[in-house]
Amino acid sequence: MFDITNIEEILENVRQALTDEDWDRAVELVEALRPPDQADVFEELPPDTQSQLLPLLNPEDSANILEELDDENAIEVAERLETDDLSRIINEMEPDEAADLLGDMAPDMAAIALSSIEDAADILPLLEYHDDTAGGLMTSAEVVLHKDISAAEAISHIRTVLPDAETVYYLFVVDDEVKLVGVVSLLQVVMADSHSRIIEFMNPEVISINFDTDKEDTARLMARYDLLALPVIDDENHLLGVITHDDMVAVLEEEETEDIYRLGGVPDERISIAVSPGSQLRSRLPWLVLNLGTAMISVVVLSFFEDTIAQLAVLAIFFPIVAGVSGSAGTQTLTITVRGLALGEVSPRNGLAALTRELLIGLANGLVLGILVGLIALVWKGTPLLGLVVGVATLLNLIAAGFAGVIVPLGMYIVKIDPALASPVLVTTITDTLGYLIYLTIATVVLIGLF
Amino acid sequence: MFDITNIEEILENVRQALTDEDWDRAVELVEALRPPDQADVFEELPPDTQSQLLPLLNPEDSANILEELDDENAIEVAERLETDDLSRIINEMEPDEAADLLGDMAPDMAAIALSSIEDAADILPLLEYHDDTAGGLMTSAEVVLHKDISAAEAISHIRTVLPDAETVYYLFVVDDEVKLVGVVSLLQVVMADSHSRIIEFMNPEVISINFDTDKEDTARLMARYDLLALPVIDDENHLLGVITHDDMVAVLEEEETEDIYRLGGVPDERISIAVSPGSQLRSRLPWLVLNLGTAMISVVVLSFFEDTIAQLAVLAIFFPIVAGVSGSAGTQTLTITVRGLALGEVSPRNGLAALTRELLIGLANGLVLGILVGLIALVWKGTPLLGLVVGVATLLNLIAAGFAGVIVPLGMYIVKIDPALASPVLVTTITDTLGYLIYLTIATVVLIGLF
Repeated sequence: MFDITNIEEILENVRQALTDEDWDRAVELVEALRPPDQADVFEELPPDTQSQLLPLLNPEDSANILEELDDENAIEVAERLETDDLSRIINEMEPDEAADLLGDMAPDMAAIALSSIEDAADILPLLEYHDDTAGGLMTSAEVVLHKDISAAEAISHIRTVLPDAETVYYLFVVDDEVKLVGVVSLLQVVMADSHSRIIEFMNPEVISINFDTDKEDTARLMARYDLLALPVIDDENHLLGVITHDDMVAVLEEEETEDIYRLGGVPDERISIAVSPGSQLRSRLPWLVLNLGTAMISVVVLSFFEDTIAQLAVLAIFFPIVAGVSGSAGTQTLTITVRGLALGEVSPRNGLAALTRELLIGLANGLVLGILVGLIALVWKGTPLLGLVVGVATLLNLIAAGFAGVIVPLGMYIVKIDPALASPVLVTTITDTLGYLIYLTIATVVLIGLF
Repeated sequence: MFDITNIEEILENVRQALTDEDWDRAVELVEALRPPDQADVFEELPPDTQSQLLPLLNPEDSANILEELDDENAIEVAERLETDDLSRIINEMEPDEAADLLGDMAPDMAAIALSSIEDAADILPLLEYHDDTAGGLMTSAEVVLHKDISAAEAISHIRTVLPDAETVYYLFVVDDEVKLVGVVSLLQVVMADSHSRIIEFMNPEVISINFDTDKEDTARLMARYDLLALPVIDDENHLLGVITHDDMVAVLEEEETEDIYRLGGVPDERISIAVSPGSQLRSRLPWLVLNLGTAMISVVVLSFFEDTIAQLAVLAIFFPIVAGVSGSAGTQTLTITVRGLALGEVSPRNGLAALTRELLIGLANGLVLGILVGLIALVWKGTPLLGLVVGVATLLNLIAAGFAGVIVPLGMYIVKIDPALASPVLVTTITDTLGYLIYLTIATVVLIGLF
């Protein structure tokens, strides 16, 4: 079995070689690794060392490392390289990765680098497209077959064009105007009678995507239809490029991390445990200040009831239940709704059905939990009315939580704000504020009114 | 561009055809769709209709639908079919999917179905492996090449063996004992000199995985090294089967949903917005009862301070800040740690560094927020001491939140409980309980002591 755990050890050896200023040994160690491992080892090195080591590696390995590094790290390293070295390395990168890197670099540096890159013609058109669209994901390096050539011609074309491409599984077929007309797999070409024309055995029902489509929708489409490559077209069906499966996996992972982070109150998906405390703080503190602001709404609501609390301090003792349990229920509903929206299972179309379901669940949960909480208050404090107040408040709060957990993310989705981003704060604010309001209003009327 | 939005319309038409009892029309409509769309339309139909419609479709489409359906739905449909129909359909399924289905069905039904399946020899060995391991993910249908055959022989072998397989991108190479010795891509075979032997141009450094490896680790390995197919071996390096990229994408999506759900307090990842309210309740209510139990810990802590609150009701008004802001900070840290553990960025090895970082961030956040909260209390209530108490408590609570947000998930990870499952409840319990305890202890000493 392939051993993935020895990266630490290799990193140690690389560091030792660098301390000994034995650059040959460091190069040898890094070049023996696979690209993702090379990048892992590389990104642990100090920036100075990175820029010194990269030009010493063979350009293919350097290109792989630049492709695998985080965008910011890659730009940092690239901008410190000599123009010659940079051009040499970019020449070995996949055109889409090269375009991403050049597009993010300082424009003057990118222009100089581009001027001495052989494959600039492959990269230049890709610079036009938005990073967040299908056009920004596509690459131009795939083989394109004309519909009228034979299987034998196709194979000899592949032999000529692509001595080292490893990602040619689907071959896209175009007509005289380079409009997409079909797809064949390499296997089909190999198995076809060598004289038969591509158009005779290609699949004309090719799934394609407009260059302007959002990249997450693009990745979901590829995952849904299990596509290893997706052709990108313009409004007139001209083939512009191809998106490969590795980009799909990367976009999906990025999106999941983004959703998980946003639901957890970390608004910047580039923040990971490895990012410096300073950047962490800049990303997370504003979010906590926002949370403080929304908590202040509850504080203001509570301040209206200061007299009630002063008269009956036992009421405050049940606050954790009032805020906690309905908050948890709201988060459950929110999580299911947000994930459903992301996976396309929930939409405004079936929103009413989802709402009805969650209100029913809120009612059922509320009945069970309300009775439980009421009994606890009754048995513990021996006051039937207190039990009733706490129980009824819990019931109403859980119904409100079900309502907020659906309405808030769905509303965000409709006004095109990411539901995972804004919903958690809003739902918590609603369940908290409504929770305290309902509980203390009932308490004031029932308990204080009667005392 | 391929239109993905017309499923609703087609579903409407299928329903209409079924209402009219026009089965031919329904079959025609479903057969015109791509597999994931067929499954989407199919799963919206009532169970009776599903079992009636499935045998009418051509077996390949039926097989695709069974493969795409949720496991539970697939078993339900399969168990209602006539044995003949079932065998005919399973014959067309991928061996791994067939093994999954048969393994989940009632054993007697599975045995009867297996006895009349042509490709039983492909399916039987797969039944041995655990669903949660690499062995459970693998399929047996790929081409295997002997190391000593020529490129031309390989191509003619592929032509004979695989008239319709669409997933042969990597071909795995074995020796006389069927031990894995290398890999070639179909492109390499096509481009090689037709007389050269496979062993001359194959890549001997093939990444493989033991059948017993956890399926999530397997999927992460495939994503990391960008593998379209991963060979599965036993302890003696014998090739057992191959895992294809579609299984990788499915496992990763399942895992992300599981993590998102568990962080959001939905312990069962099969629950989606589409699942019946009854099942939802069975999954979610116990979790809320657990939350109620942990909230009771805070309630008990608060009850120790009932006298303090009775003397100074204004203290209770700041509860939402005490519990809310440190809860949010704890959730932020928890989210980053859990995601880091899932992606392999955090481990017990670098746990101390992560903890130090989070304590620093907690300190910095705490200073800023503590001063803010203190100022709000001071300005609003005009009591400097109250401002000091609320501010210092906020500072200490944020440091505690940073501590709990790292220690809890890391501890779970070490004792091999999924951090995403148990951590949110524990972290919230800790931040809440400690929050109230710290706040009210300081308040009792400083404010009540001095009043």
